[in-house]
Amino acid sequence: MSDPFVVIGGDAAGLSAASKCKREAPDREVIVFEKGRWVSYAHCGEPYFVKGEVEKLENLLSLTPEDVAERDIDLRREHEVTAVDPDAETVTVEGPDGEVDQPYGDLLVATGARAVTGPIEGTDLDGAFPLHGLDDAAAIRAFLLDPSEDALADVGGQDFVDRERVERFGAMMPPETAAIVGGGYVGVEMAEALSAHGLDVHVFQRSGHLISPFGEAVGEAVAEELREQGVTLHLGEEVDRLAGDGRVERLECAGGTALDVDLAVVGVGVAPNTGLLEGTGIELGEDGAVAVDEYGETARDGIYAAGDCAEDDHTVTGEPAWVPLGLTANRAGRAVGATVAGDPTPVGEVAGTAVVKAFEQECGRVGLLEDGAEDAGFDPVTETITAGSRSGYYPGAVETTVTLVADRDSERLLGGTIVGTDRAAVRIDTVATALEADMTVGELERTDLAYAPPFSPVWDPILVAAKVLNGKLKD
Amino acid sequence: MSDPFVVIGGDAAGLSAASKCKREAPDREVIVFEKGRWVSYAHCGEPYFVKGEVEKLENLLSLTPEDVAERDIDLRREHEVTAVDPDAETVTVEGPDGEVDQPYGDLLVATGARAVTGPIEGTDLDGAFPLHGLDDAAAIRAFLLDPSEDALADVGGQDFVDRERVERFGAMMPPETAAIVGGGYVGVEMAEALSAHGLDVHVFQRSGHLISPFGEAVGEAVAEELREQGVTLHLGEEVDRLAGDGRVERLECAGGTALDVDLAVVGVGVAPNTGLLEGTGIELGEDGAVAVDEYGETARDGIYAAGDCAEDDHTVTGEPAWVPLGLTANRAGRAVGATVAGDPTPVGEVAGTAVVKAFEQECGRVGLLEDGAEDAGFDPVTETITAGSRSGYYPGAVETTVTLVADRDSERLLGGTIVGTDRAAVRIDTVATALEADMTVGELERTDLAYAPPFSPVWDPILVAAKVLNGKLKD
Repeated sequence: MSDPFVVIGGDAAGLSAASKCKREAPDREVIVFEKGRWVSYAHCGEPYFVKGEVEKLENLLSLTPEDVAERDIDLRREHEVTAVDPDAETVTVEGPDGEVDQPYGDLLVATGARAVTGPIEGTDLDGAFPLHGLDDAAAIRAFLLDPSEDALADVGGQDFVDRERVERFGAMMPPETAAIVGGGYVGVEMAEALSAHGLDVHVFQRSGHLISPFGEAVGEAVAEELREQGVTLHLGEEVDRLAGDGRVERLECAGGTALDVDLAVVGVGVAPNTGLLEGTGIELGEDGAVAVDEYGETARDGIYAAGDCAEDDHTVTGEPAWVPLGLTANRAGRAVGATVAGDPTPVGEVAGTAVVKAFEQECGRVGLLEDGAEDAGFDPVTETITAGSRSGYYPGAVETTVTLVADRDSERLLGGTIVGTDRAAVRIDTVATALEADMTVGELERTDLAYAPPFSPVWDPILVAAKVLNGKLKD
Repeated sequence: MSDPFVVIGGDAAGLSAASKCKREAPDREVIVFEKGRWVSYAHCGEPYFVKGEVEKLENLLSLTPEDVAERDIDLRREHEVTAVDPDAETVTVEGPDGEVDQPYGDLLVATGARAVTGPIEGTDLDGAFPLHGLDDAAAIRAFLLDPSEDALADVGGQDFVDRERVERFGAMMPPETAAIVGGGYVGVEMAEALSAHGLDVHVFQRSGHLISPFGEAVGEAVAEELREQGVTLHLGEEVDRLAGDGRVERLECAGGTALDVDLAVVGVGVAPNTGLLEGTGIELGEDGAVAVDEYGETARDGIYAAGDCAEDDHTVTGEPAWVPLGLTANRAGRAVGATVAGDPTPVGEVAGTAVVKAFEQECGRVGLLEDGAEDAGFDPVTETITAGSRSGYYPGAVETTVTLVADRDSERLLGGTIVGTDRAAVRIDTVATALEADMTVGELERTDLAYAPPFSPVWDPILVAAKVLNGKLKD
């Protein structure tokens, strides 16, 4: 019997791999080391928990430790892997009972990503949160409560949550003015969440555009939506420091802007959690994520990486890319589990498909936009159009803005974005599927998409964009 | 200068072709003969006009005759083409001023489809309507009005509408019990429209399933929805005759069921309007639609056909198929217009993508389902799954049912359906795009579709279906 399949990290990729391996090879021993108390939680649901649309922390758990145990997976929470020795084929684990060396037959590194706070000072003050994990979400929601309320009962998750932190923030007077540092999608979602609690919300974004991976057209629509919803935007403002006496009291920008705040959410980026592999000889890509092959395996036999700590091949370029996303983590984990169980399964490519809700606006993006396409050596041609979401005569038809990018010579579709309030986001899947299939703009234009007055005009907004872009390519 | 581009039929395909040709070759003379008074109207919007969500008939016009004239198209309404002579390259036209022979350089047959009433007796009684054209829609809505209301003002479209018919039905007492004969998508849409007016609505469907082209899972969901909304379904009931003394009073089925009704909408099917071509030697397919090549051209040089009277190549089989749909008509017309103007443009293939709203249920279908796939010589494997429309913890997540069909040996995706109340319909475009690209189920399973809690779970319902079907194929 071979040594166990050891998984480092008990979230999406790790537990998907463990579960799939146990299902396909029930006799294989599978051990999952998780350094924290939480496992298998929905990171993407945190803003909606803070907003209050998701009632309790436990609603965000995909699997409880009991569910994991039922799958006959040996899950060890509060066990941190501190070293990997590829030659000895062991990992060093620190747990409540001390340090041990655990041999592995196959190893999956699924350590995820960590929030980075950049060069901003004062992010360790009370009232400044990275929003990266359920304990942050719990503390923010407790902070929003009136001290007379029972914070622990409100946030839920009593078996796992950092109770001291929840009670401490629950006892404070609720904040009135919030700064969100970073206008990426977490920032946009948090603006909605905090506005729902009646806070005066300010978003600070160093560049001139919100959610920059979604391109200009979407960024502008989101900025307009946020302003209409009462959020104050500070675009082109670089936050220098958060200041205060133990608690956040004030935000200061490099350009001189300052604002009195009593809550700050800092969401300026994430980085792959791969420090553990330093010195092991396992190759990291330029973003610091683990380099893997099409099966998620590193250059060392039997060592895999998946999820937010790993690279994937990009659908459009075919080159390795670091695009941490939930579906990719789940799918890659599942594929590695199958491969380890004896059924070699490709992890699939990543197109960078992402959707985000900004109050009433639904936004989507996929593939390469203008800048990314140029960086990848394409000669991009971009077209942005606005078309109706339904037949013009049907109630509820609204403008939907679509951007498509194609390569000039090959006419191959490279990427696209969409924004609108009527079923806009899921339409990006059409473009994602076209990218997966390496379709040209002409092929997309001739695709037989759905039409019925309540759902789409005769020419769906994506078809309109393809038609106009194709015309531009032929000019 | 060549003879004019003559178009027979002034609806979607005809006017798309005329407009595109004029845009690309402004000097070419373009004549459109339309036998009726209406041009370029949205047939698919009629149920919503009857329902009252679309206020006036004119809202359903994409182009007015004035718009058409502005494009420098010679539109001749109330001119019926009665014969085509391919050898002489002329058409015979009967208009208000008599009969003329019109020479053509290129000819487009865009005569659309006509409603068939099958062997049902009594469909010519007052109060029985086919719902095929704006005059039918106008008469039904006038019928629904209290006689004290001004029917002509209510329905609108005074420049075109059959005023006598509107006034006659407007003067009648409104119906209370409606029979819808035929449970296809027009039947389902009309059930919603008439229910909104408070009528007691009965749907009669000869087969055991509603909207049969959408397959069983969708048919059952729609049946459940209609029943919940108070519609009485008579499935497996073949309507024999409508009876009454000048007016519809009673419906009788072959099996003995009878019902007193004062309104009947008969929507049992359509057939291509190609009688005009009898004896011309122009080939028709097995459904009676015009056989054309990839540019929409018949075997006779310079004679084209497009829209509901013509075949298209099917995306999945590559064989000619008659699938009358709005997008196809527009796209094929536009392509023929470009080709005639000197830019040969393929009309594109048809995947049979269709979506329909049944009260709150959104339904979609595309490609070949089990029966169609068998008929086409595939060995179909079918899987139906139910998955959440959003992350389970996010408010508004509902069950969405997806069916996918694949070929056993090649594992190629052949078709699919979807039904659910939360953004279900437009998701069928993902499957339509996959069919256009000849994707396998495995390729679809690995496609990077969008995930965000408000819009989709980590594994989108279509990915869940692909995953399960792929597992079945590997067994």
